[in-house]
Amino acid sequence: MAQNSVEKTPVTLLGLGAMGSALARTWLAAGHPLTVWNRTPARADALAAEGANVADSAAEAVAANKLVVTCLLDDASVGEALAGTDLAGRDLVNLTTSTPAQARDRAAWAGDRGARYLDGGIMAVPPMIGVPEAGGYVFYSGSRELFERHQDTLAAPAGTTYVGEDAGFAALHDVALLSAMYGMFAGTAHAFALIRKEDIDPAALAPLLADWLIAMAPAVHQTADHLRTGDYTKDVVSNLAMQVAGTPTFLSTAEQQGVSSELLSPYFELMRRRLAEGGGEEDLTGLIDLLVH
Amino acid sequence: MAQNSVEKTPVTLLGLGAMGSALARTWLAAGHPLTVWNRTPARADALAAEGANVADSAAEAVAANKLVVTCLLDDASVGEALAGTDLAGRDLVNLTTSTPAQARDRAAWAGDRGARYLDGGIMAVPPMIGVPEAGGYVFYSGSRELFERHQDTLAAPAGTTYVGEDAGFAALHDVALLSAMYGMFAGTAHAFALIRKEDIDPAALAPLLADWLIAMAPAVHQTADHLRTGDYTKDVVSNLAMQVAGTPTFLSTAEQQGVSSELLSPYFELMRRRLAEGGGEEDLTGLIDLLVH
Repeated sequence: MAQNSVEKTPVTLLGLGAMGSALARTWLAAGHPLTVWNRTPARADALAAEGANVADSAAEAVAANKLVVTCLLDDASVGEALAGTDLAGRDLVNLTTSTPAQARDRAAWAGDRGARYLDGGIMAVPPMIGVPEAGGYVFYSGSRELFERHQDTLAAPAGTTYVGEDAGFAALHDVALLSAMYGMFAGTAHAFALIRKEDIDPAALAPLLADWLIAMAPAVHQTADHLRTGDYTKDVVSNLAMQVAGTPTFLSTAEQQGVSSELLSPYFELMRRRLAEGGGEEDLTGLIDLLVH
Repeated sequence: MAQNSVEKTPVTLLGLGAMGSALARTWLAAGHPLTVWNRTPARADALAAEGANVADSAAEAVAANKLVVTCLLDDASVGEALAGTDLAGRDLVNLTTSTPAQARDRAAWAGDRGARYLDGGIMAVPPMIGVPEAGGYVFYSGSRELFERHQDTLAAPAGTTYVGEDAGFAALHDVALLSAMYGMFAGTAHAFALIRKEDIDPAALAPLLADWLIAMAPAVHQTADHLRTGDYTKDVVSNLAMQVAGTPTFLSTAEQQGVSSELLSPYFELMRRRLAEGGGEEDLTGLIDLLVH
């Protein structure tokens, strides 16, 4: 049997925003029969011309296929869209952005309705979908059996990373990585602000910044090692006492450049708190414990 | 003439803390005649055994060689150490951590005393000195002639990156990159805090975090492009309005996990301010302007 005659799993997709539409086009291009539904029908019509079946209602879309994927605005939208549908026997894969608690509640909700549940957290923007070399991927958590059964279908739009049976873990990993990214963006915003009034080309600073951050990102491995062992002083090169001693240079430089230190100060404040509690010989791992209540 | 018979530039080094001692050992290993001075003599004695000439005073050390490198605790220490020395005709390379304003003032101060001045900002920790594959380097700014004359000597401990005649630019680049790094560290601290009470191995999260940050760091190139053109809406995939709409998920997740959002909130607050001012179609570049007074 030639490869192109292998039958691809039919997919129902609810939600055709920018991300949903990108998912839809990837599945169509990969040869999956696709049934779509969207609250406002105009986007579905565009996909009909590309070969998608357009359902008149969410209930009709859910009835069409065993594998049902949701990619909606938020968790409340998932509840609304699926309210009048029969989920019994369905494999529900929810790619809607959620908190871990929402994902866990939604998994229980789906179970009550006879569906297996897999939650997904998308680590990509729509242009990266269906473009493997762009490096986007999706965290999945919840039913491992569901994940393994549909992994090939789920791998068409983006890479797949399964992170556990706890339905909330995909959302938790998603939020953790994106939170770290916003921290990095806050740092780069401060850096660009420092040179804003100087005769320095931002495009000359950018590669220096990128290379430095890329070189420093692997510091998380030592942090993880310290968190595992509980010893925050092992192999410390620049200890907390030394780093706190360096903070006035950062704050004075910001002041000299007319830059607010509002993005930097909270971290320095945590450093000072940990030092005051006796963490001077540690690296920065101890700050994590100060964040957790 | 065989290469090993080429005479290496003699160096005077003031300051033998961890960084100064690493510099000293690298120059000795590379065959540079080295004269050292340290406020407390014990560290100098250790280097004497390795071939360094130990000066009895800073004045004697400065008198010994044309090229004088300082690597002291802070800018005030530089002023104190050099107070009784004759700098006329000297090439002063100051690797002491400083603010841009301190570096500019020190350059003028050195000029008044008849010395040429080059300021340096070290992007490395001591174990990276003399280890080219570790990737550390030093920003230099100030006298280009001095930099070019001594580049080979300065390149022995770490890579060299010259960033302009303005003596403050090395410190400014140094602080900009390290500030960005602290932002990234704040983000990763928040990420690790989110999983602190969960059954998730920090060592499993770490590579996901590192890979994601490494993938996202090149976003600074678009930021630089936007800052140059002043158009913050070009090629925007996920605009500010969409990103602000996503922030409740981050804050709720932090709350659910018992994690303070103190490191994340200031950036989100800036996002909201920019959105309120009409930046909804922009990417995050506009936040930089809100930081600059």
